[in-house]
Parts: sequence; C-alpha cells; structure tokens
Amino acid sequence: MSIPTPSLGDMNLDDFRHYGHRLIDWIADYLEHPERYPVLSPSQPDEIKAQLPTTPPQQPETVYQILTDFEKIIMPGLTHWNHPGFFAYFGITGSGPGILGELLTAALNVNAMLWRTSPAATELEEVTLDWLRQMLGLPATFDGVIMDTASVASMLAIAAAREAVEGLAVRTKGLAGRADVPRLRVYISDQTHSSVEKGAIILGIGQDNVVKIPSDDHFRLNPGELERAIKADLAAGHHPLFVCATVGTTSTTSIDPVPAIAEIAQRYRLWLHIDGAYGGMAAILPEMRHVLAGAEQADSLVVNPHKWLFTPIDLSAFYIRHPDILKQAFSLIPEYLRSAETDAKIVKDYMDYGVQLGRRFRALKLWLVIRTFGSEGLAARLREHIRLGQQFAAWIDESPNFERMAPTPFSTVCFRAHPPRLDDETELDQLNEALLNAVNATGEIFISHTKLHGCYILRLAIGNIRSDEYRVRRAWELLQGQLALLTEMLP
Amino acid sequence: MSIPTPSLGDMNLDDFRHYGHRLIDWIADYLEHPERYPVLSPSQPDEIKAQLPTTPPQQPETVYQILTDFEKIIMPGLTHWNHPGFFAYFGITGSGPGILGELLTAALNVNAMLWRTSPAATELEEVTLDWLRQMLGLPATFDGVIMDTASVASMLAIAAAREAVEGLAVRTKGLAGRADVPRLRVYISDQTHSSVEKGAIILGIGQDNVVKIPSDDHFRLNPGELERAIKADLAAGHHPLFVCATVGTTSTTSIDPVPAIAEIAQRYRLWLHIDGAYGGMAAILPEMRHVLAGAEQADSLVVNPHKWLFTPIDLSAFYIRHPDILKQAFSLIPEYLRSAETDAKIVKDYMDYGVQLGRRFRALKLWLVIRTFGSEGLAARLREHIRLGQQFAAWIDESPNFERMAPTPFSTVCFRAHPPRLDDETELDQLNEALLNAVNATGEIFISHTKLHGCYILRLAIGNIRSDEYRVRRAWELLQGQLALLTEMLP
Repeated sequence: MSIPTPSLGDMNLDDFRHYGHRLIDWIADYLEHPERYPVLSPSQPDEIKAQLPTTPPQQPETVYQILTDFEKIIMPGLTHWNHPGFFAYFGITGSGPGILGELLTAALNVNAMLWRTSPAATELEEVTLDWLRQMLGLPATFDGVIMDTASVASMLAIAAAREAVEGLAVRTKGLAGRADVPRLRVYISDQTHSSVEKGAIILGIGQDNVVKIPSDDHFRLNPGELERAIKADLAAGHHPLFVCATVGTTSTTSIDPVPAIAEIAQRYRLWLHIDGAYGGMAAILPEMRHVLAGAEQADSLVVNPHKWLFTPIDLSAFYIRHPDILKQAFSLIPEYLRSAETDAKIVKDYMDYGVQLGRRFRALKLWLVIRTFGSEGLAARLREHIRLGQQFAAWIDESPNFERMAPTPFSTVCFRAHPPRLDDETELDQLNEALLNAVNATGEIFISHTKLHGCYILRLAIGNIRSDEYRVRRAWELLQGQLALLTEMLP
Repeated sequence: MSIPTPSLGDMNLDDFRHYGHRLIDWIADYLEHPERYPVLSPSQPDEIKAQLPTTPPQQPETVYQILTDFEKIIMPGLTHWNHPGFFAYFGITGSGPGILGELLTAALNVNAMLWRTSPAATELEEVTLDWLRQMLGLPATFDGVIMDTASVASMLAIAAAREAVEGLAVRTKGLAGRADVPRLRVYISDQTHSSVEKGAIILGIGQDNVVKIPSDDHFRLNPGELERAIKADLAAGHHPLFVCATVGTTSTTSIDPVPAIAEIAQRYRLWLHIDGAYGGMAAILPEMRHVLAGAEQADSLVVNPHKWLFTPIDLSAFYIRHPDILKQAFSLIPEYLRSAETDAKIVKDYMDYGVQLGRRFRALKLWLVIRTFGSEGLAARLREHIRLGQQFAAWIDESPNFERMAPTPFSTVCFRAHPPRLDDETELDQLNEALLNAVNATGEIFISHTKLHGCYILRLAIGNIRSDEYRVRRAWELLQGQLALLTEMLP
C-alpha cells in the first residue's frame, strides 16, 4: 500500500536518521569520557537563560542548529550524573541498555494505561517486576506496579493504608468535616525520606500527624520508641495507621530493624511500608539479602531501579501485597476507557493502581537492563560499589585527619575532616563546608553533605556505573589535599 | 587523563554504538510505515507473557538477542499509537525531534530536582514553558512547571486550592479528626475527566464532595447550575473550594463557558482550574485562541504537549498564577538537599512545586519539538487536524446512514451509525458496538467509543502527526463498508 507523504507530518526521516546516528555517536563519545566535563556545573544562576531567546521561534530551525546550541549552551549548564566522580546524594545511574530502552519507548510512544492500549507494555511490566521480585528474594505474595518515583509510591502506600481502614470510607466520604474520623497517625524516624511526610501532607493527614520517632545511635528507627508512640496515640484516641521502615536511609543509609517493626505493626494493625529505594536493591546480592529481612511481612515496599540498578530515571518498582486495595481506592473507569477485556476481568489495567492515567512504557528499559547485564552481572556491579565504599571507609578510619560519622552498611560513607588540634564544633562545621566546596570546585568529584546530631557531615555515595577504584582513590587524594590547603590557612 | 576502563562498568560502547545505530534505522523504518502493523494489537490476554521466561536471566545476553525478541514477541503485542489510523481516545503523538530529545534525556540522566543538580535543566524548563505560554496567549502572570501528567497537575491544583484557604492549615494539621474543617467541595461537570475526581480522592476530599454539575445540550458545564450548587453548599455549611472548567472534554471535546465560570469562581472565591490537556493546545492557532477566553482569570491551567504537540509521553505543562502556594504546600528541604543557591533564594528548585522529588529533564524534548517545527509549523499541523476533523464531520452530516452526536469544536468527531429504518436504541447500541469492533478488527484504523445520554457513541479523534487526508478518507470508507456488511445481516 502506498501512502502519500504528508507535507504537514513529522520531520524528514532522512534527517531523523542522520541526526539520530550523530546523537548515538555523540552519546557514545560522551559516555566514554564524561570526566572531560566538570562534574558539578560551574554555571551561575540565570547564565543559561540569558543565552536563550525569550520568545519561541516561529519558523522551523534545523536540528543541526539546535544540537549546536545544545553543546554550546546546555552542556556547560549540566551537572554530570554520568561522571565517574559523581558521589553526591545517591549516584543514580543509567546505562547503555537503559538508554536504548528509553529510545525505543519514546519511538513507540504507547500509553500503558489499559491492557488494550498496548498488551505487551502491561505484560512486560508484570514479567520484569516479577523478575526483580525474585532477584530481591521477595515472596510471590507481592505484586508489582511501576511508578515514576518512590515519592509517589510511598504516597500511594499511605493512601492504600487509609483505604484499608474498615468503616472509614475515605474514598467516598473523604476526611474533612467528619466527626467520626480520628486523627490518622503516620510513624517514621527522624531519618526517613521527606517524601513520606510530603505524602501525608497531600493525603490530608497533615504534618502534625507524622510522628518522627527518634533514631538510635546508628540512625535506626527505635522500635521501643515506636511502640511507646503508638500506645500514647491510642490513649489519646488517635488512629495509628502506617509505619515506614527504611532500608538505606538517605543521610547515612542506616537500616531500620524491620523484623521488630513488623512485629509491632502486626500487633497494632498498622500498614508496614518499606522504603528500600536505594538500599533495598542490595538484596540482589546473596550476601546482602539480609537487608530485606522482615520484608516478607510488609504490606508494601519500594525499590528504585533508577537509583542503583542502572536504569535511567524514572522507574520505581512498587510492590504491594494486596493490590486490590489500590484498585479499590483509585479505580475510576469512565465509559471511554472501558474495553471488552476489562469488562471480562481477564486483564490488568495498570491505570487502576495509581494517580496517573498516562503511563510510559517503562518496563522496556528495565527488561533491557536486566537481560544485558544478567542478574549476576548486576549483583557483581553492586558488590564492587560496596567494596569500594568499604575501602573508602577504611581509609577514613585509618586517617588521623578524618573520622567516620556513621556505620557504612552499603557504599555510602558519612565522614568529616577532624584534624587532631581542632575540636570546636562550629569551626569543624565551617572547615567541612569549606572542604566540600573546595573538592567540588575541582570539577573532578561532586560530594554532598548532611547533618547528623547537628554536625555538618560529608557524604560520599558510590552508585554510578562509571565509578571505579581509580576515581574513589582520586576522591580520597582530593579530600586530603584540599584539607591540607585549608588547614594551612587555619590560625 | 587516562582512566582505566572498568571491567564492571557499562555495556561495551562499541556495542552501544552498533545497536544504537541499528535502533535509529529501525525506528526510522518503523516511523516511515507504521501502517505495516495492525494499529490495534491482535494479541490475546497472556499471549506475550507466555512467551517470556518466568525467571530472570542470570548471565548477560546480547543486545542482538534482546532486540530479536523485541521484534518477535513485543512488537505483535503493541497497539501502534504512531499508526496514522490511530483515532482512538486522544491521538497522543510523538515526533522525530521529541524522540531525539528523549534519547538525550536518557543519556544525560540528570535529575532536575534542584537547580544545582542541573542548572540547564531548570532554566530550560523555565524558558520552554514560557515559550509555550506565549504561544497559547496566556498572560505573563502564569508560571509554569513541568508535570508528568495532567492527572497529577489537576491533583496539585486542588491541593493548592486547599492550601490557599485561610486558617485551614491543612499542611500541618491535615483534615482528619478536626471539628473546625467543613466539607470541602469540588465542582466539575458530568463530562470532566476522571482524574479530577481521583485527585479529590487522594487529597482526602472524597468522592461525595465532588459535585458533578449536569452539562447542557452541548455537553458544557452549566454556570447557572454551578452557582445553584455553590449556594446550596454554602447554605449547608460546606466550603466551596475548587471548580474545574474543561477546554476540550474527553468524550466530546466540548468547551466549558470559562468566562461565566470564572465570574462565579471569583464571586464565591473558588479556585478556578482549567483542564485544557487536549483542547487548550488549539489556542496556539490565532483563529482558535478564543477557546482559552477567560483563562487569564484562572488560578491554574494544564495543557499536555504529550497529547497534541508532538512530544513523546510524558510532559504536562502546568501553569499557576501563584506558584508560591504550591511551594507553601509542599516544600520540604531536608539538610541533604540544601544548597548555597537555594539558601540565597536566587534559584528555583522545581522539587518544591510537587510530589515527586526525582524529575526527568523533560524540557529538552519540548525545546527540540518547538524549535524543529517552529510555532507556526506546530499551528499549521493542528490546523490541518482540525480541517480533517471538520471534513469528517461534514461527511457524517451528509450521510443518510450516520449521525453526529455532538458539536465538533476541534478535530474529534462523536457520531454513530443510524440507518434510516433502525430506531430502537438498544439495537442501535448493539449495531454501533459491532461496527466499532468490525472497523478495529481491520487493523487499518482504531477508534474508541463513549456514551452520551446513555447512547453508545463512536469517536474519531485526529491528533496523530502521521494522520492525513488519505487515512481519514480510508476511515470513512471502512465505516461505510463495514456498516453495509452489518446491516445486510440485520433481520
């Protein structure tokens, strides 16, 4: 069949081919040496904006022009998450197969809202999430749904908990203006990710009802304190709803004692959610499987392949034991989205399990990543990151000028400079902040900070697929060298 | 500087180059003739799943193997949203420059959560959304934020409305267990997208507090009925919070009378949100600018470049007049996310304006799309879609066997077969459902349905960059031909 080429259609496909090939080569060159760029962008506020036209172009421009501007204007304004010296926050990291997967996803541009709108997108999502579940050692009682971020997954976990409360009928009646609804209480530790608190705000639970349990000396949620808080809330007539245990907290990657928390959650009938966004992924290593001990008792759990499984952002794997509760909370099927398969209840329509109706075909990139590296290859890469993290921690411990500020269960090290003759905490904070800025200004590494017990702490997080021993050694050299320069200047 | 190649790193970059080039060629071939595939996947439930291993591969597989499986197993299970005969739902459509943009986004893999984590991602988001704002003729009082979907944007609009209520302090106190919070009322029409209702469920407002105003004969929200409902709620002691006006409803693309609704919203101090996810985009045509009349009085508005602006899913443009309210509702800055620029308040950290912390660098694809086509080129394409829609509507109107079931303000036509001698509504419903299935089974076109006043209605929505006059004519031929076959079989 011959179709006339539409004059008003897509860009010329010869151009697409030409620039597509150029981009692939450009990306390969970039990924070969992202260290040619400073890892942290030296760009000043509004510097990029000032170079861009304030009004949209009326006439078409060539892709050549656009890519030239990309290299000239955009690239200098990027912080390079692919740089082997990216040790800030958590090193979320993509990979070649993940990029190819995203390319295909964008080209196919299917909406995985209904099974019918792309059966393969729905079924590949089921299969890849079940593969990942097996890799993590989670029981088959968990069903997976792909979310964009752990923030949304955690919010939905609280929403599911709210929906599961008998007699509350939040879906229909809401929470406002009701005398029959008690205050709903959400328990986290002082180390839990801020997204859980954000979720509670969205859901109308309120920050005041987010109970922050003090963490112990190792920054872990204290189960004794949790139980005390629950009892106090019960005595006050509140409704203990939800507890979040974290496997790999954001500041120190501490691991909350999940089995003890699970036991309490069960006793008081709270929803137990596990935020394993970063650390949970380590369970794909047989020798690290213990980090998810107790997870089999959780009601829901999130891990982020876009953090520590080489999958480009965004892809969060949300596991839930009773997915029907999500459906009960959110399913709304207007007539225009009904299909014969849906009516016959023989397929899964993923739109029923969350807020977003539009859903990208994200499973494709995860499928490519898992198959390209294999589960053992993926585990080997995480194992190497952990080895490097432990090595860096050992260097810190051996140094007279530095000290470790938290246990290092994974590959993220919390430490600070602490030269022998300096003991004033304010001066130490200032010194460490100066040290952070000094090493980041080299453009060779990017580390971030946190605060623990009020002290300014440096964090070196290894999770990038391009980070290697050379680069971790280099980070250590830079830290020592810059500290020497800074302390020379001390009075 | 020479960096040792990590043995545990990314896939071999020669392989990346090789398969990247192959994929670009494959995609160009695919986009040249997506009509070689049936538009609606003929796949049966579980057919794809049955062909995939139930356990993950332990060892690496070659990209060659994976792409072979992709063609063999996944492709037959796809519904082809790129097919020129995709006329179902709304034809969300990507384009060549959008695909190249997504490829770059995946490769760079930056997280646009903080300005610091990629200044160019934040600033390009500001610039491209301001370009789009100008193209739509919206006043400069609107600030833009990129969201993944309109579902999330609408939810955030209600959340902002809730936060803006004086003295309610929902962020801190929540809604539950409070005697001082009235029922919060959200007004939509019976044609409003289900995501607004979903948003109200999430936020704890409850479905019972979503007031569905009956639409008029042209499926538009009736302002008189709206005011009556608000007055009744005030009399009952409820709090009228939020009204959503839709420009291009999902079933019929009707346009709510925004100026009249805005006037009522102002009088009763409701938050006015405009859902222009699909139809709002038509305002980039000077002759269609009137569809956003009254929008300048709205508090927020959403349009979806991933629907009708050739941008791969997902990218929703959310405009808000007082973005500080979103920040007030959601900003939570843990120590590990603080930066000097943030503290100095000289930059925008987009994480402050929504639920998700992790944010893809979505502005890049929109920048490529707008520049490659130019604002006039984009308008020309939408103009052609509208012309084709009007042409199809005229064919329906002229036919003795079909009738139009709603006005056609854009490029989506609601119609049904109605042969002269058939007037039983049940039989008409059955006939039209059979007709839908028959034309969809040809694999040449995919249309979807809705219900209006209880009747089964067919929808032909033109929004795909590859749809052209040939294909719209072909749809009309198929509909007439299949109807003839079906009516021959009638008793």
